[in-house]
Amino acid sequence: METYLFWMVPAASLLALALAGYFYKQMMRESEGTPIMAKIASHVRQGAMSYLKQQYKVVTWVFVGLVILFAVMAYGFNLQNHWVPVAFLTGGFFSGLSGYLGMKTATYASARTANAARNSLNKGLRVAFRSGAVMGLVVVGLGLFDISFWYLLLEKCIPADALNPTSKLCIITTTMLTFGMGASTQALFARVGGGIYTKAADVGADLVGKVEAGIPEDDPRNPATIADNVGDNVGDVAGMGADLYESYCGSILATAALGAATFIGTGDTEMQFKAVIAPMLIAAVGIVLSIIGIFSVRTKEDASMRDLLNALGFGTNLSSALIVVATFLILWLLGINNWINLSLAVVIGLIVGIVIGRSTEYYTSQSYKPTQKLSESGKTGPATVIISGIGLGMISTTIPVLSVVAGIILSYWLASGFDFSNIGMGLYGIGIAAVGMLSTLGITLATDAYGPIADNAGGNAEMSGLGEEVRKRTDALDSLGNTTAATGKGFAIGSAALTGLALLASYIEEIRIGLERLGNTVLDLPGGIQVPIHEASFTDFMMYYDVTLMNPKVLSGMFIGSMMAFLFCGLTMNAVGRAAAHMVEEVRRQFREIKGILEGKAEPDYARCVQISTRGAQHEMVFPSLLAIIAPIATGLIFGVPGVIGLLVGGLSSGFVLAIFMANAGGAWDNAKKFVEEGNFGGKGSEVHRATVVGDTVGDPFKDTSGPSLNILIKLMSMVAIVMAGLTVSWSLF
Amino acid sequence: METYLFWMVPAASLLALALAGYFYKQMMRESEGTPIMAKIASHVRQGAMSYLKQQYKVVTWVFVGLVILFAVMAYGFNLQNHWVPVAFLTGGFFSGLSGYLGMKTATYASARTANAARNSLNKGLRVAFRSGAVMGLVVVGLGLFDISFWYLLLEKCIPADALNPTSKLCIITTTMLTFGMGASTQALFARVGGGIYTKAADVGADLVGKVEAGIPEDDPRNPATIADNVGDNVGDVAGMGADLYESYCGSILATAALGAATFIGTGDTEMQFKAVIAPMLIAAVGIVLSIIGIFSVRTKEDASMRDLLNALGFGTNLSSALIVVATFLILWLLGINNWINLSLAVVIGLIVGIVIGRSTEYYTSQSYKPTQKLSESGKTGPATVIISGIGLGMISTTIPVLSVVAGIILSYWLASGFDFSNIGMGLYGIGIAAVGMLSTLGITLATDAYGPIADNAGGNAEMSGLGEEVRKRTDALDSLGNTTAATGKGFAIGSAALTGLALLASYIEEIRIGLERLGNTVLDLPGGIQVPIHEASFTDFMMYYDVTLMNPKVLSGMFIGSMMAFLFCGLTMNAVGRAAAHMVEEVRRQFREIKGILEGKAEPDYARCVQISTRGAQHEMVFPSLLAIIAPIATGLIFGVPGVIGLLVGGLSSGFVLAIFMANAGGAWDNAKKFVEEGNFGGKGSEVHRATVVGDTVGDPFKDTSGPSLNILIKLMSMVAIVMAGLTVSWSLF
Repeated sequence: METYLFWMVPAASLLALALAGYFYKQMMRESEGTPIMAKIASHVRQGAMSYLKQQYKVVTWVFVGLVILFAVMAYGFNLQNHWVPVAFLTGGFFSGLSGYLGMKTATYASARTANAARNSLNKGLRVAFRSGAVMGLVVVGLGLFDISFWYLLLEKCIPADALNPTSKLCIITTTMLTFGMGASTQALFARVGGGIYTKAADVGADLVGKVEAGIPEDDPRNPATIADNVGDNVGDVAGMGADLYESYCGSILATAALGAATFIGTGDTEMQFKAVIAPMLIAAVGIVLSIIGIFSVRTKEDASMRDLLNALGFGTNLSSALIVVATFLILWLLGINNWINLSLAVVIGLIVGIVIGRSTEYYTSQSYKPTQKLSESGKTGPATVIISGIGLGMISTTIPVLSVVAGIILSYWLASGFDFSNIGMGLYGIGIAAVGMLSTLGITLATDAYGPIADNAGGNAEMSGLGEEVRKRTDALDSLGNTTAATGKGFAIGSAALTGLALLASYIEEIRIGLERLGNTVLDLPGGIQVPIHEASFTDFMMYYDVTLMNPKVLSGMFIGSMMAFLFCGLTMNAVGRAAAHMVEEVRRQFREIKGILEGKAEPDYARCVQISTRGAQHEMVFPSLLAIIAPIATGLIFGVPGVIGLLVGGLSSGFVLAIFMANAGGAWDNAKKFVEEGNFGGKGSEVHRATVVGDTVGDPFKDTSGPSLNILIKLMSMVAIVMAGLTVSWSLF
Repeated sequence: METYLFWMVPAASLLALALAGYFYKQMMRESEGTPIMAKIASHVRQGAMSYLKQQYKVVTWVFVGLVILFAVMAYGFNLQNHWVPVAFLTGGFFSGLSGYLGMKTATYASARTANAARNSLNKGLRVAFRSGAVMGLVVVGLGLFDISFWYLLLEKCIPADALNPTSKLCIITTTMLTFGMGASTQALFARVGGGIYTKAADVGADLVGKVEAGIPEDDPRNPATIADNVGDNVGDVAGMGADLYESYCGSILATAALGAATFIGTGDTEMQFKAVIAPMLIAAVGIVLSIIGIFSVRTKEDASMRDLLNALGFGTNLSSALIVVATFLILWLLGINNWINLSLAVVIGLIVGIVIGRSTEYYTSQSYKPTQKLSESGKTGPATVIISGIGLGMISTTIPVLSVVAGIILSYWLASGFDFSNIGMGLYGIGIAAVGMLSTLGITLATDAYGPIADNAGGNAEMSGLGEEVRKRTDALDSLGNTTAATGKGFAIGSAALTGLALLASYIEEIRIGLERLGNTVLDLPGGIQVPIHEASFTDFMMYYDVTLMNPKVLSGMFIGSMMAFLFCGLTMNAVGRAAAHMVEEVRRQFREIKGILEGKAEPDYARCVQISTRGAQHEMVFPSLLAIIAPIATGLIFGVPGVIGLLVGGLSSGFVLAIFMANAGGAWDNAKKFVEEGNFGGKGSEVHRATVVGDTVGDPFKDTSGPSLNILIKLMSMVAIVMAGLTVSWSLF
């Protein structure tokens, strides 16, 4: 066996972490600029850190509750094994740590980026991009570290089953999925809590400061401005870090579990082992290629905007191109069955990601017609901006959905060896395509994460009064980030859908284990056929539980799943609405009661606004997140296995489309406003501008709270279902 | 056989039509009031009629195209039989006729209602409600007339199959489904075209007239005011009539087809016949009970608002209570198997409908907290109104979905005799529950349709300068209608979901016929089992085509189905946005260029606004509607039968939830504005009012264009799939 290849995985993870540390130190050596710049940065940093501590406290209590629940189930009921609670904890811990480290870097980098931008655009890019790379490398490094750690530990501790040699890897990989569940739980809290925080502050700051008082963004006279900058860090940086840690690990773990499950009962432990480590190897190679890509981002000293864009684009494209070659090589070296077709599945995954990214760019960038027309609709007021934005967002779901569908069918078809009945390998191909998309996350996340850093640098520049030129440069960096981030977002959205499908298979695998623990040895299928349970195929389980689209339990689950996506968005939208309303009232109160704020003579009470955002986020994040955990359990207890699968598929298909709609509508509103601010349709301060600001405000929770949380929701519901499968097998009402 | 019972069906339909004629004549005897009232009513009537003529012209061309297509398929390919094109045409014709007659009545009734309201509230109610009853009775009368006509014709013309005696009724009922498809096609055009027309006019009139110029609604100085009133008729009346004709016939036809399919291969032609006519009988009895309900709506001469509400409530509740008793009686008389449980399924359907109606009322009426809080969010401007309204709408999907799920499971469970594997009877129970919900449509539609009539009466009163008192009375009638209409809407939404499920079974039935025509006599199932095709159960077909949730074709279909719901809404939203923008520009232009309009010295160019709405609606309605027809055909050609079923189920689950979200968000925005206008949070003209007007404007296409069209989209896609099943069986790429 090619076990030596496996050691690439921990090696790559350590390499990523080491390089992240190096970039971090390099960044810290830069100057923070003037004392006032350093002071503002420290305010924001402290606010962000103290929020994150608060949030982790709440999340810790939730985790304690869940771990007790799992422990009870592990010993009292029919649950997987006693590693589950610990694995769950480490997933949560590392996901939180990714967010924390990313945020720490970002809050140290913002003033430094602003300072470097005083020098030149190119210097600003360098600091911001390298700081973004810290986050990218931390996420992939910690992800592969956790994966290799658990793999090696369980490999040692779980005894082999002599009768059924292929069962060991199944147990290992499904146990590791619980650490994915921990990561998803943490990520959901980070996205929802951070999303509510940042958008409450943002909406509040914009509505009163920009619209009513007519002062610019990030103006120090605005009481909500520190909360707004803190929010960018806790929402866009820490939230994104935890989120992508979850996506990254989720895709690898789900595919590894599928690889193990596909070969169960075959006795072919060698091929099973290869199928398990293949996704990890692709990810490990991806780290190396991301690093190459990061180093290839170089520009001349007097680089123009277009040069910078080309430099960033070159880095990500280089990594993507190399990963194609490397995948063919590594799967061939590994000697896995069907290696050519599996490598082609990776290519398909990458193409799908790129198409989604391009379509996102087309629908949301002000360089193209749709967003320009959206700006134009501001001529007839805010209502038509909202109507057109919703229309645009809904229509923009078409290309991503069709390309994901093409990706599903083609990667399945290739991996199954052109035989649709070969479900295990077919789904494995879908998983591998998802892993391929995320394999170069190291660099795509770097280009994504440096956007908020540049944004914060802009805030710092504004508050420190650094002048128009610096602000222009940081704005240029920010909008540069938005363009390059599109590809990264395409990969994240596309991979979520594919991972969701791969997790379905893991659920079936867990059902098999649950049935065996209940003492079943055969499945009684219709027509009097009996199949030994450890040889039963996915199709056999589908028949046994009648998971067809005519079963009312499946259909009921699907309706509930679709509803869950909407309910979850509704709850988070309302949470933002409520918290923002409090913020608006507070800012208005300060303008009214603290004399001299608007003349710059008195300092506003920043801390009060930070407190309002914090309290809003803490209060509001718990219920929707718990709902995601409760729904699959309750559905299972009432409708059984068919109901749960219906729930997951219904949630996946509706949630995926809803997520794209919300993300793109929000992005388009944001850029439609920017397009007006660039001087079109009357420019800043015109009626059209006012109308597009309303659109942008509505879009904020769309694109930064509800939309991105949906991807996590989909996967978290699957993981909860997987962990709770034992319970569903034993108990269900209908 | 209890064939004599069948004659109840045509008898009830003729009774309904006769009574509708009587009510119409009675209404026409009322006075139209002052010459100016008559003149305005005649303007609106002519505008509405000329629009409808235009629309029917476009629809006729589409129908001609489709009929040619069907004719080619009927003779050249593997299509059902040569009745299909003709049945398709009659469905479209009668659906259009329902809308036309309803609208004709409404446009004659509006001035008469206003005139009666000059006298007393009670007199106004009487004229409006009886006119609404014309529409209710026309829809159910024409529906059952068409159904009995086709049943009797096909019964005579289609020869019995001596070898397989149960196949005749299957062919009859599936042929009749094509007339449902005709009705759905017409209804979709009516809803989309009418919805675009009315909302373009409404949004345009509101944005410039109310918001910018600050003149009241329906003010004759507003150039878009005639177009707005025409729109109420073509959208809310003609659109609703065609829509509910489609729902009513769809539920009966789908259930009858299921009844026939359930008994195929059993040889039990007697029970099959009973299962086919049972839904028709329930509908026939429902007509009689609706008439009793309509006549029971009586009030004292000096009735208060509460008296009127009680009177209307009494009528609908009486009909619903009686239908329960009557269903038990009629199914017992019919001697159908399992009659008690089937009757209980009807009870469940009614309860589900009532629960949905109550929850709609809770979330959208200004008498309850959610809408009041939505009004309050206007304190912080239009953006928070939009955010909160979207949140509210998304959360409001929970109760309807959970109650539909409960309805699905319980009616299936009862009808199947508590045996989940008895799919045929179980789904039949779901269909019967849907028929139960819509059986008293005669009266629920009367309470729904009189709202727009009262609304138009208000417009007429305003434009004729009848004074505050009359306008107040018509407003009271209008809001009264909104309350009682909630139940009717609950029935319409709930029945759409249930009918959608029942249609799935008809699709399978059509697949069976298609396979037989291709010369198949047995199904080869996994495990080497062979089942004769005419004895194969639904489950057998599910296995044969592997319609499980692990099949990538099914999953692909589901993603496309979810996307279709969003794409369709996006296209219709954008259409409204574009048409409204033209209207806004035109109204602004007239205010600018025609001197003296705002002083009432010059007459605005009403005709130009009517023309803009007409052109917008005609242009924009074709593409989304054709998409609904193309999607199931294209999906079938690429992904085959599993893909089509995935498409239908994905479209159903996402579309259903999306439809509730849009309807409730729109309704809540509308009433939040009204709540402010009632004097809360500053009342009319305040900043809060301005903010809620933006919400109301956004809500218009939500609740009157995109939302209601989705219900039709779902069923139309199913019907197209059914009619095109032969093609899908013969051809598919994967």
